[in-house]
Amino acid sequence: MTAESTSTAALEEVRVFTAATGVVDTTDGRSVHPDPWWAVDGSGRVVDTGHGERPARWDGALVRDLGRSLVVPGMINAHSHAFQRAIRGRTHRRGAHDPSSFWSWRTQMYTAANALTPARIYEDTRACYREMLAAGITCVGEFHYVHHQPDGRPYDDPNELSMQVIAAARDVGIKLVLLEVLYLASGIGEPPLPEQRRFCDGDVDAYLARCDALRPHLGGGVRLGLAPHSVRAVPARALAAVADYAAHHDLVVHAHVSEQVAENEACRAALGRSPVAVFHEAGLCDRPRTFTAVHAIHVDDADRTMLASQHVCACPTTEADLGDGTILAGALRRAGVTVALGSDSNSIIDLVTEARSLELHERLATQRRLCVAHGDERPAGVLLDAATVGGGSALGDAALGRLGVGDSFDAVVFDRGHRALADVDDAHLLDALMLAGSAAPVREVFIDGSERL
Amino acid sequence: MTAESTSTAALEEVRVFTAATGVVDTTDGRSVHPDPWWAVDGSGRVVDTGHGERPARWDGALVRDLGRSLVVPGMINAHSHAFQRAIRGRTHRRGAHDPSSFWSWRTQMYTAANALTPARIYEDTRACYREMLAAGITCVGEFHYVHHQPDGRPYDDPNELSMQVIAAARDVGIKLVLLEVLYLASGIGEPPLPEQRRFCDGDVDAYLARCDALRPHLGGGVRLGLAPHSVRAVPARALAAVADYAAHHDLVVHAHVSEQVAENEACRAALGRSPVAVFHEAGLCDRPRTFTAVHAIHVDDADRTMLASQHVCACPTTEADLGDGTILAGALRRAGVTVALGSDSNSIIDLVTEARSLELHERLATQRRLCVAHGDERPAGVLLDAATVGGGSALGDAALGRLGVGDSFDAVVFDRGHRALADVDDAHLLDALMLAGSAAPVREVFIDGSERL
Repeated sequence: MTAESTSTAALEEVRVFTAATGVVDTTDGRSVHPDPWWAVDGSGRVVDTGHGERPARWDGALVRDLGRSLVVPGMINAHSHAFQRAIRGRTHRRGAHDPSSFWSWRTQMYTAANALTPARIYEDTRACYREMLAAGITCVGEFHYVHHQPDGRPYDDPNELSMQVIAAARDVGIKLVLLEVLYLASGIGEPPLPEQRRFCDGDVDAYLARCDALRPHLGGGVRLGLAPHSVRAVPARALAAVADYAAHHDLVVHAHVSEQVAENEACRAALGRSPVAVFHEAGLCDRPRTFTAVHAIHVDDADRTMLASQHVCACPTTEADLGDGTILAGALRRAGVTVALGSDSNSIIDLVTEARSLELHERLATQRRLCVAHGDERPAGVLLDAATVGGGSALGDAALGRLGVGDSFDAVVFDRGHRALADVDDAHLLDALMLAGSAAPVREVFIDGSERL
Repeated sequence: MTAESTSTAALEEVRVFTAATGVVDTTDGRSVHPDPWWAVDGSGRVVDTGHGERPARWDGALVRDLGRSLVVPGMINAHSHAFQRAIRGRTHRRGAHDPSSFWSWRTQMYTAANALTPARIYEDTRACYREMLAAGITCVGEFHYVHHQPDGRPYDDPNELSMQVIAAARDVGIKLVLLEVLYLASGIGEPPLPEQRRFCDGDVDAYLARCDALRPHLGGGVRLGLAPHSVRAVPARALAAVADYAAHHDLVVHAHVSEQVAENEACRAALGRSPVAVFHEAGLCDRPRTFTAVHAIHVDDADRTMLASQHVCACPTTEADLGDGTILAGALRRAGVTVALGSDSNSIIDLVTEARSLELHERLATQRRLCVAHGDERPAGVLLDAATVGGGSALGDAALGRLGVGDSFDAVVFDRGHRALADVDDAHLLDALMLAGSAAPVREVFIDGSERL
């Protein structure tokens, strides 16, 4: 009911968004209210928000009524490999190739990766990001690892393919954190396989030089993060150099961590410790909320403790598709880990389904209900947070995934008339969406106050 | 390419349905083809079908072009509790009540069940069936167990509530198999709890008398099946009486089987054998393809062998929601069990999601890929079969879920322009739908040749 601040925005450039129901972020926290409203200035920032009656100072502002809807912050997709969308539906049949394990699936994925041209990277990424936008995703962390020509030689511009990803994001109008991947080896102490050559910069200096060269191209909704691929692909020495560069430039760092049991076994055999311990010892967990362990499925209590104050990005539908195993988000959260969500392989692009699957997969594994939330927490709120602010934090912007004063009006509008929500009352709307819903009811999407869908 | 039969249907009453892609059922089996067509007579039956060029004899028939779509048989929902849709989103918060187990969830569900009036049963069931239709479901097996007044006294018509379910199905236009539930006890040798009184007929004779009284109301898309609720609720003696009645009247029998570990433990403690063994010994597995074990999660090799030539109805999203555990459909199918699918609690109504979850949950549990299909089988085909002919067989009609000559034209039209399918080629369309899709792209639904959506 209360306005959050008094704004100096000129009335004529303010639009007031209203809806039947929405998540209102105030200094007291976020919750679902009837009759929410957001006053948004010409630059797309929220200058005032509340629910119920609006203060008289917004009388006369242009009102955009979003109708019988539920408005939530735009969803943040913290882990994507956009090009993999092109193999949607193509990895589920035996034949000459038998993709019955993660590793044989990977062979098929590599074939697709090695067929990519710059134009194809652009086209596939653009198609993928359009689908993300339509599913209510307003910012994506692209874990981008296809850098060079198939034989490993750089393009004339060594950042050619990264620039194609940036162009695709800009053309779609989705916010991007380019998580530039460092890939050096096929296994601990093993040279790259031929099919991995185009992922590889050769050494960490060449990689960091590419990152330097990318920095002038950032801005306008595009930021940079670092992504040492995994303990398989990056030796510990190089990890330390990544940690230094990231600290110096205030960048987030993401890595694949403990997705498969075989990865853990190889790491323990070669290095005598878990993948999480390797990243921790490289200094990647030193700065709070700057490191994201993607997957972190096969972890123990010691690993969870090392990840406290950092993030885990869960990708439940991909982790099911690839037979990775079940993330136990309840235990991670209890250890102080912030959970984010990713669409990963983009076989499915739907962060509501990812959020629901996070909870439901843990119920399957534990044969208990109410797994992700603790004590008095509302499970639907915890899941919405994972799909919004959890991803924002993982991507290095605490304002992402919020609709409070000062935040960009990046918002997704769910149609309450959709069959999945039609008969649900206000009090249970968020629960029905996050625990029994999907992105199917997405009707409109705004980024920086502009309609993009 | 080949026509299946020569029809005697008059040309003027035949409509020819065409589409860009569809599942064509011929005597050689079913597969996805470009340019499918179905000639449908005035009663809604397929009189001819094929793909590619049509025989000249259908020149002049009215053509209904379903456009850029994938047409598959209407989906068969083999297990529903329609009224539970009303608690969608309401069972996921701790508070005065803590629904952190199946059993405490059940307490909350019983509260809803005991608040139902005849009018409310009708309204809730109608709303639920409308949503099913919109999700491409053309026939539902309703496992209906709320029969009497809250104190257990029958209504003036003891079938009052069953008649409300029938009326709701008829008003929506969905086909119904009313799986009339027998409920006698709260546990093995235990009288019903007060909150179970309205489910209970008192004895099997009263129950069978109600079934007798229902039979004149069948027809017009409504059939009857029997449903002894579970080993908890029905003593072995009564099961034998159910088996006799079902055999005499040629009815299918459905029961909840091994949904929870506690149910197995109680059964073994009281009866010295598994729930499946109890049903098997009662004679319910004697007639091939007439018994459906709903859930069958906590089963062993001996159980699977007893269920050979029968059905298991998997309800993966409900089984995840309730923390039941993972059905291993691969092992069931290897034992000769036919798999069907159900929306069960109707928290989610989407048989494509159920089918996908069947495969993906097993991948999570086994950390392998390609679980449900064996050898050269196409996983997407196996999953489509579970959502169509598997359910049809479980509901006692082998023609349900098919679009071959002689079958009703019950069909669902998926929009190939939907974001989940837009960039997928013909060869992988069914794979993308069944392994990465949902019911969101459903655009039109036909029952008996008539458009219902």
